[in-house]
Amino acid sequence: MVSNVVFGRGSFNQLEEILLLKRLNVNAPFIFLVDDVFQGNEKITSRIPLSYEDEIIFISAEEEPKTSQVDALVEHIILKFKDRPSGIIGIGGGTLLDLAKAVAIMITNEGETSDYQGWDLVKNPAIFHVGIPTISGTGSEVSRTTVLTGPEKKLGINSDYTPFDQVVLDPELIADVPKQQWFYTGMDCYIHCIESLTGTYLNAFSQSYGEKALELCKEIFLGNDLSPVESQDKLMMASWHGGMSIAYSQVGIAHAMSYGLSYLLGTKHGIGNCIVFDQLEEFYPEGVKLFKEMKLKHDIQLPTGICKDLSDADFNTMIDVALGLVPLWENALGSNWQKTITRAKLRSMYEQM
Amino acid sequence: MVSNVVFGRGSFNQLEEILLLKRLNVNAPFIFLVDDVFQGNEKITSRIPLSYEDEIIFISAEEEPKTSQVDALVEHIILKFKDRPSGIIGIGGGTLLDLAKAVAIMITNEGETSDYQGWDLVKNPAIFHVGIPTISGTGSEVSRTTVLTGPEKKLGINSDYTPFDQVVLDPELIADVPKQQWFYTGMDCYIHCIESLTGTYLNAFSQSYGEKALELCKEIFLGNDLSPVESQDKLMMASWHGGMSIAYSQVGIAHAMSYGLSYLLGTKHGIGNCIVFDQLEEFYPEGVKLFKEMKLKHDIQLPTGICKDLSDADFNTMIDVALGLVPLWENALGSNWQKTITRAKLRSMYEQM
Repeated sequence: MVSNVVFGRGSFNQLEEILLLKRLNVNAPFIFLVDDVFQGNEKITSRIPLSYEDEIIFISAEEEPKTSQVDALVEHIILKFKDRPSGIIGIGGGTLLDLAKAVAIMITNEGETSDYQGWDLVKNPAIFHVGIPTISGTGSEVSRTTVLTGPEKKLGINSDYTPFDQVVLDPELIADVPKQQWFYTGMDCYIHCIESLTGTYLNAFSQSYGEKALELCKEIFLGNDLSPVESQDKLMMASWHGGMSIAYSQVGIAHAMSYGLSYLLGTKHGIGNCIVFDQLEEFYPEGVKLFKEMKLKHDIQLPTGICKDLSDADFNTMIDVALGLVPLWENALGSNWQKTITRAKLRSMYEQM
Repeated sequence: MVSNVVFGRGSFNQLEEILLLKRLNVNAPFIFLVDDVFQGNEKITSRIPLSYEDEIIFISAEEEPKTSQVDALVEHIILKFKDRPSGIIGIGGGTLLDLAKAVAIMITNEGETSDYQGWDLVKNPAIFHVGIPTISGTGSEVSRTTVLTGPEKKLGINSDYTPFDQVVLDPELIADVPKQQWFYTGMDCYIHCIESLTGTYLNAFSQSYGEKALELCKEIFLGNDLSPVESQDKLMMASWHGGMSIAYSQVGIAHAMSYGLSYLLGTKHGIGNCIVFDQLEEFYPEGVKLFKEMKLKHDIQLPTGICKDLSDADFNTMIDVALGLVPLWENALGSNWQKTITRAKLRSMYEQM
């Protein structure tokens, strides 16, 4: 679990004080991985505390994060600096947070990032790493995974060393997220709740977190009573609790199939989940019903026909990625999931999208 | 925050595996501080994994934990063992958990335990420490404090080094708690929620945890639908979420006044909170109303007249302890709390108890 967290509007300003205690020496920089939408945005960049050789690396979140991207970042850092960094700070949405977690792990673990995709494969503790979400919903700020697209699969590095050592939850930072992205990323949280709460892995721990996150999602996406400020505060907490819920249970069908879309088509995680979940009435009837209400209320049109020009080989690739995520299917449908989920069934489901 | 947690019925059996990875060497023992109600209880003691020089120390939880007790335990450990222990494991209710946290801190910090009562006075990281609750409600398993009675005050050691490195939440362990204790300790959680949710320190982080814990308390203590197993699972989570809620806000009047009772009369924390809270309709009208319903439903008779034979000096001692807890009063009543809470007012309130 995350060891330290600060919460509050303006708490981003505490970053300087937090890092001061963690600097190893003047040759050991802090590396800030920052979503490039903030390049030139003084409101953010001027408040990033830089000293000595600290470096900001702006990174586009247009594409899902890749293992090759992590390898390149780690190589850059190792070649450029004499000492191992004092820490990695990710500032952005799930993409930037996942990159920061993965870079912090790969600084101390040999080989390639793709070697560690899976469960509990990381050998050495990561260096100090901090997560500062600027979009809420993925739960990456609290989870024990960092989901990356590798040469062969899209899969998380799930380990006890993955969670951030420090998280800064400042709801002011999510105030300017464009509406579509706000919705798609928020729905990532909503879908976490539905997948966790209806899953076979559920226990009272995950249930209590999932229920709270779901309640907050309903307030935010279906209610009419919240001010923008309250809505931002609550969305940040919904993402947190939703992330905690799946950290101790598992996601399900929407995530398994959405990983297939991302791997083949590069579909971003939030919108990919929405495209899949919209078609899952058979498996999550109540959850999908509410989702459609939320879509309507916020006037969201999902892309259609994204699979219409795919070849047999393409479908097979997506199906391979999706079927590889055994724990997700087991959570959704129990140990006999393969009776329901055949390759033909998955193909017909993808063809709807 | 707690770095690692396992949850589940029977998860106590994972302790051996958890400790295996944390043993420093064969001369560095694990010290188990265990509530002495479990002495001779094979169900617990036979499952404590002992190797090499590991030691079980049984401790009575009849009295509130004391700084002098921590000093004595630390001295015993330092004199007896060649090497610093690999870790301290607390198994019991809030008393045992608080002792385990304090001992783990004092192994690496010089001077006396009472030197560290307050906020952020601890200088060095504690040694590895594990909390395993066998009674639920105090939130000690998740909090960043360890509340101790010292020579001059009852006050917590609040620090970033206080929280457990590992918590094992096994609801089977709370199955045999006697009814009165189940109620008093559960009410500690309920009162945490009321004090946090009505406090001026509240933010969306604490609110979301407090609301969930409160909802669980209502289900457990006022509902009729839960099986014993469900009730145990949910009480364990209520305690957890309630503890998280106050970790990032603060408790209030019941805790401030109950600390006075404990300091002077040795009143145990759970029952002390109940005795005080029962008289706080003026400050927490809705919370106290529900509390009285819970008392009635579970046929709980609180002691009365516990202050009737006290001297002026005794009252002054209690009032000094209570008034010393400034953040608690500020949280409850805002920065002008001293306008409402005078010595005379406190005296008249204590006289009702």
